[in-house]
Amino acid sequence: MKVPLSNAYKLLSPRIVVLVTTVDEKGRINAAPFSFCGPISIDPPMLSIGVRKFQHTYQNIKKTGEFVVNLVTEEFAQKAIDCEKAYPQGVNELEKVMLHWCDSEKVKPPRIKEAKIHLECKLRNEIETGDHIMMVGEIVVANVEAVKENYIPDFEKLKVIMHASGESFYSVGREIKLKREK
Amino acid sequence: MKVPLSNAYKLLSPRIVVLVTTVDEKGRINAAPFSFCGPISIDPPMLSIGVRKFQHTYQNIKKTGEFVVNLVTEEFAQKAIDCEKAYPQGVNELEKVMLHWCDSEKVKPPRIKEAKIHLECKLRNEIETGDHIMMVGEIVVANVEAVKENYIPDFEKLKVIMHASGESFYSVGREIKLKREK
Repeated sequence: MKVPLSNAYKLLSPRIVVLVTTVDEKGRINAAPFSFCGPISIDPPMLSIGVRKFQHTYQNIKKTGEFVVNLVTEEFAQKAIDCEKAYPQGVNELEKVMLHWCDSEKVKPPRIKEAKIHLECKLRNEIETGDHIMMVGEIVVANVEAVKENYIPDFEKLKVIMHASGESFYSVGREIKLKREK
Repeated sequence: MKVPLSNAYKLLSPRIVVLVTTVDEKGRINAAPFSFCGPISIDPPMLSIGVRKFQHTYQNIKKTGEFVVNLVTEEFAQKAIDCEKAYPQGVNELEKVMLHWCDSEKVKPPRIKEAKIHLECKLRNEIETGDHIMMVGEIVVANVEAVKENYIPDFEKLKVIMHASGESFYSVGREIKLKREK
């Protein structure tokens, strides 16, 4: 079945969901969920998030050059999604939805306490791509609560959620072992 | 636990796996799997894949400006991963692993018959990002075999696989319904 092109992005799913924390020039905290997010370089370690210009996340990153990517897991998924609501500039969504935060190690925006994976980032580039802007961050601190061998996250313990579109979210399923020969 | 930064990309997982088909200037088919791939714009519909300069995928896209993103599903997952093996330029990996292909609608690189989601793309930009290059493609045809409401893929039928790192791959799990209020 052919898909109208405005819906094509839905076929590139599901995608992990991240709650991005930033601060404005007065140090006021903002948090917003995104799913256009992924690694774009291994060494140096870099990721990108796709944001829109009207979003406080974009404006804050522009001003301060820093952000924290907090992966969303089942325990606080609804609260994370509730941060999507449009509050005025300066309102701390984490307070509104009753999530908690603590200091980051190398950047001003806080980590979310409920999150089990945190990536502290410094802005390295900003690239316009159609109706989004890719904020390219270098990862300066990476933190995770439960891993298997080789720093692969333990998804059974972490319960990372993924997003397809609209209100459809998914859990990570069973492991599939495939052989890789290079 | 703090993760060495060279492993930080593993925390941004799991990610969908795509088998990208390209052709060289002589029309010879190439196929290679990638997991640094996602949507970066809704309208115009655009995606990016992170490739490396030494890869035939990169060289072919540079020469022809076209590629097809075929999502990998369980039925042909091992064959898709086997396309990662380094064959000489001009060798058709699909033949080697016994996958099948058919004509695309608007671009020269073929669709993979076994794939249930195809995105035909034209190159719009090429961005160096650390040790990868993001090939930005505009999606010109999008095709899927099974959807639920609103063109959301039916993952139970499609059995899309996702990659964490190394040989760890995952299925899509159960649906989680969350409410979104904007």
